[in-house]
Amino acid sequence: MQKDELIQGLLGLNALKYGDFPLKNGETTNWYVDLRSVFARPDFTESFAKALSNMVDPDSFDLVCGVPYGALPFATLVSQILNKPLILLRKENKGYGQKPQIEGLWKDGQRCLIVEDVITTGSSVNEAIEQIIANGLRVSHVVVCVDRQQGAREHLSYWGLSYEAVLTLDEIAAQYPESSNENS
Amino acid sequence: MQKDELIQGLLGLNALKYGDFPLKNGETTNWYVDLRSVFARPDFTESFAKALSNMVDPDSFDLVCGVPYGALPFATLVSQILNKPLILLRKENKGYGQKPQIEGLWKDGQRCLIVEDVITTGSSVNEAIEQIIANGLRVSHVVVCVDRQQGAREHLSYWGLSYEAVLTLDEIAAQYPESSNENS
Repeated sequence: MQKDELIQGLLGLNALKYGDFPLKNGETTNWYVDLRSVFARPDFTESFAKALSNMVDPDSFDLVCGVPYGALPFATLVSQILNKPLILLRKENKGYGQKPQIEGLWKDGQRCLIVEDVITTGSSVNEAIEQIIANGLRVSHVVVCVDRQQGAREHLSYWGLSYEAVLTLDEIAAQYPESSNENS
Repeated sequence: MQKDELIQGLLGLNALKYGDFPLKNGETTNWYVDLRSVFARPDFTESFAKALSNMVDPDSFDLVCGVPYGALPFATLVSQILNKPLILLRKENKGYGQKPQIEGLWKDGQRCLIVEDVITTGSSVNEAIEQIIANGLRVSHVVVCVDRQQGAREHLSYWGLSYEAVLTLDEIAAQYPESSNENS
């Protein structure tokens, strides 16, 4: 699918909501991007995964890493499409049994592709990067489905990482009539 | 893949560990089944997903529901294979923004296929069932990759649900030399 088809699909799935929504950092936003509704359409989920996969050179990383929860379906499909091992980050420990912070199989020094669904300031991905590095791995790329363009690119440039987004909020808003009217 | 191939694959991935491991309920077990290492092999992950998909009639449910975290990759692929919408259960609220207990799109009364990776007593799946029902959905089937056979089947029979496992611990242990020696 092309970008305009992905955007139209998001609109059709009501994956974009216009209103007054609180953000993690305490601020509010007029746009709530909820990619979880994308999972209602397996073909559309796959299209996003293909778009994510097309943005990276498979030879430049060893592992696909999903940031829980919302990105895990996309990370799973990228792992399938590119035939790369998948590792999962944990947000919290289970409190019993073995307690790895990263689940899966890996070796010290392997290079990770981080897959995220929606990125805002980049703080969640930043935490993921720190968690990955603390476990002896490296991060080579970050790919996201939607960039809300609230500082993530600048935030991630600190790490000197390759960073790509399938869609930006600017690209989405440009196709959303209500937003276009308000901005006019 | 046949069952014996899946078991051999688990052994090859070191997805089965023999030792002394604490369980969630405070007891210990000699077998730790860690299916997260399966994700290191995308082809093998897909084989489990195909086996899970083959155990159900696609016309008998509307939604695929993954129990976080370990089952989400399997649930994602079952959703793809059977072309059914995927919903995600949350373990905790995000504390900001909209706070659904179940993420994705669904309608009241729709029937869920629950996908779990490893089941022991069935308590985690029981919680998932209660969460699904509390949100106005129904559960039609439970499918799991590995049944540790510590009461799950009896536990789930309370709900009168269809329940199937790709592999049981008995089937696995029968092919594991160390275990066979100890049992002899």
